[in-house]
Amino acid sequence: MDAYMILDIGGTFTRCAVFTDKSGLEPVAIKKIHTIDNDETAVDRIISVIREMWPSDSTVKGLSIAAPGSIDVNSGSVILAPNIPGWSNIPLRKIISRHFSVDIFVNNDARLAAIGEWRRGAGIGHENLLYFTISTGVGGGVIYHGQILEGNIGIATELGHITIDENGPICGCGHRGHIEAFSSGTAIQKYYLEQMAGTGTRSEITARVISEYARQGEALAISAFERAGHYLGIGIANYLHIFNPTCIILGGGVSLSADLFMDSFRKSLKSHVLSENYIMNLTITTASLGDNAGLIGALEYLKAKIGVE
Amino acid sequence: MDAYMILDIGGTFTRCAVFTDKSGLEPVAIKKIHTIDNDETAVDRIISVIREMWPSDSTVKGLSIAAPGSIDVNSGSVILAPNIPGWSNIPLRKIISRHFSVDIFVNNDARLAAIGEWRRGAGIGHENLLYFTISTGVGGGVIYHGQILEGNIGIATELGHITIDENGPICGCGHRGHIEAFSSGTAIQKYYLEQMAGTGTRSEITARVISEYARQGEALAISAFERAGHYLGIGIANYLHIFNPTCIILGGGVSLSADLFMDSFRKSLKSHVLSENYIMNLTITTASLGDNAGLIGALEYLKAKIGVE
Repeated sequence: MDAYMILDIGGTFTRCAVFTDKSGLEPVAIKKIHTIDNDETAVDRIISVIREMWPSDSTVKGLSIAAPGSIDVNSGSVILAPNIPGWSNIPLRKIISRHFSVDIFVNNDARLAAIGEWRRGAGIGHENLLYFTISTGVGGGVIYHGQILEGNIGIATELGHITIDENGPICGCGHRGHIEAFSSGTAIQKYYLEQMAGTGTRSEITARVISEYARQGEALAISAFERAGHYLGIGIANYLHIFNPTCIILGGGVSLSADLFMDSFRKSLKSHVLSENYIMNLTITTASLGDNAGLIGALEYLKAKIGVE
Repeated sequence: MDAYMILDIGGTFTRCAVFTDKSGLEPVAIKKIHTIDNDETAVDRIISVIREMWPSDSTVKGLSIAAPGSIDVNSGSVILAPNIPGWSNIPLRKIISRHFSVDIFVNNDARLAAIGEWRRGAGIGHENLLYFTISTGVGGGVIYHGQILEGNIGIATELGHITIDENGPICGCGHRGHIEAFSSGTAIQKYYLEQMAGTGTRSEITARVISEYARQGEALAISAFERAGHYLGIGIANYLHIFNPTCIILGGGVSLSADLFMDSFRKSLKSHVLSENYIMNLTITTASLGDNAGLIGALEYLKAKIGVE
């Protein structure tokens, strides 16, 4: 049987999954490890888990790696992954290929999640779609005429990092007023805590906790999500003007609270587009593959690269 | 001999040009008319000039029309051209095809100029490029992997109309803080006149006049161009994050004064990109085809559509 090795590297956890040509959306085997451990480097831990999961009874047709941050897709190197300590200019493909004799592809995790949602999730049937993952940060991917947009070396579609207010709050990347600085979970948390300043709040109050407060009717919590939706509307209006897509998919942890920001998001989007034509036949939906979007996207990407249907 | 009819419709002038398979960058015949006249509709004037220019000794292989504003490229209709009075939902292809039995294509003028610069001008050899026309407004086009980006119905790449400061000045489109509201000729003029308020300045002081003042060393005129460059840097940094191109081409009337804003533009661009990787191998250049970019782009677009080398 043919098998496909998939790795989804995150700041906290890394998952290694095995799919076969018979498996559907669920892998036949999966293991989740902490990306960082005191005794080993992240790269060594990754190599160990691949070795452990390598199926002995199948032919592995390739290894596809979803990694956070800026990826040079041509060389398979991580240029910078801010969430993984020390991950700057890591020639991931080169290092891993010393241990495993198989085709290896490395790409940005949000971009691969976009492929997953496009081929197997909420975006099926659309050839011009934008996917946004809204969680700690904001990332994304663009499918244009059935192709994934990567750019010259692969660092395109940093969709969370466009300035929508040059005097806005500081973003995770250090710049000011990016979409991420307004609409990510971190931004929702920061805004909420700033507004509460002096009343003894703590950092355990995450965006998820704030979403619970909002559901209980707390005005500040409600406004924190509405504000995120407002700015997301500005940012996505920009993207409609740039790409004129047929589908917008919102994924990531914050999108699980879409009910808390969808009204303000749609209102803002409508008021910021150049004309009705941009939203007339636009599908706006939440992601459907959950945490598996990256794994499934990495699988679809691998299959397309090696020419498997 | 085979001939190609090209129409470049502007708010003030419309040009009708004839190219043949022997002609290079210069048309074999060209006529420039006022788009608007009291006695006739713009559409009637266009039909007249096409008829007049139609070559009797050649086989016309197609008609390619560069039009300003939002174009539905599938139906060949002008959705909205704000600079031409009454041009809202004009089924241009349908109307013109009643008079001329030939393949007709309609597309946005800035996008066609991008094709011109890509195939025959400053962008030769680049497959991932962004073209900006900076004049009364700001428009543009995107070539991605050798394809022109049009979007679902053709209203993509409105590159001047993305919000970079939601509290910024009003744009020509009515929204706030778009790139066009900061970096177009109109924006340079507005800013200059606002700063001069009360000192008896007049609207004849166009961006071109201000550029002359700047060259004479006038501080306010210099700062008006530097400000435009600063905001253009914010906007184009956004586009580098989205497209990761290898080439940026600046065209349009304001780009003739590139020396007045290039330093502030480059400085702003450098300070707003996520990493050096976005500008490391990036060519930044001004357009080389001048006013003919739209005509030549429309010609190249037509040839590609009908399958002529």
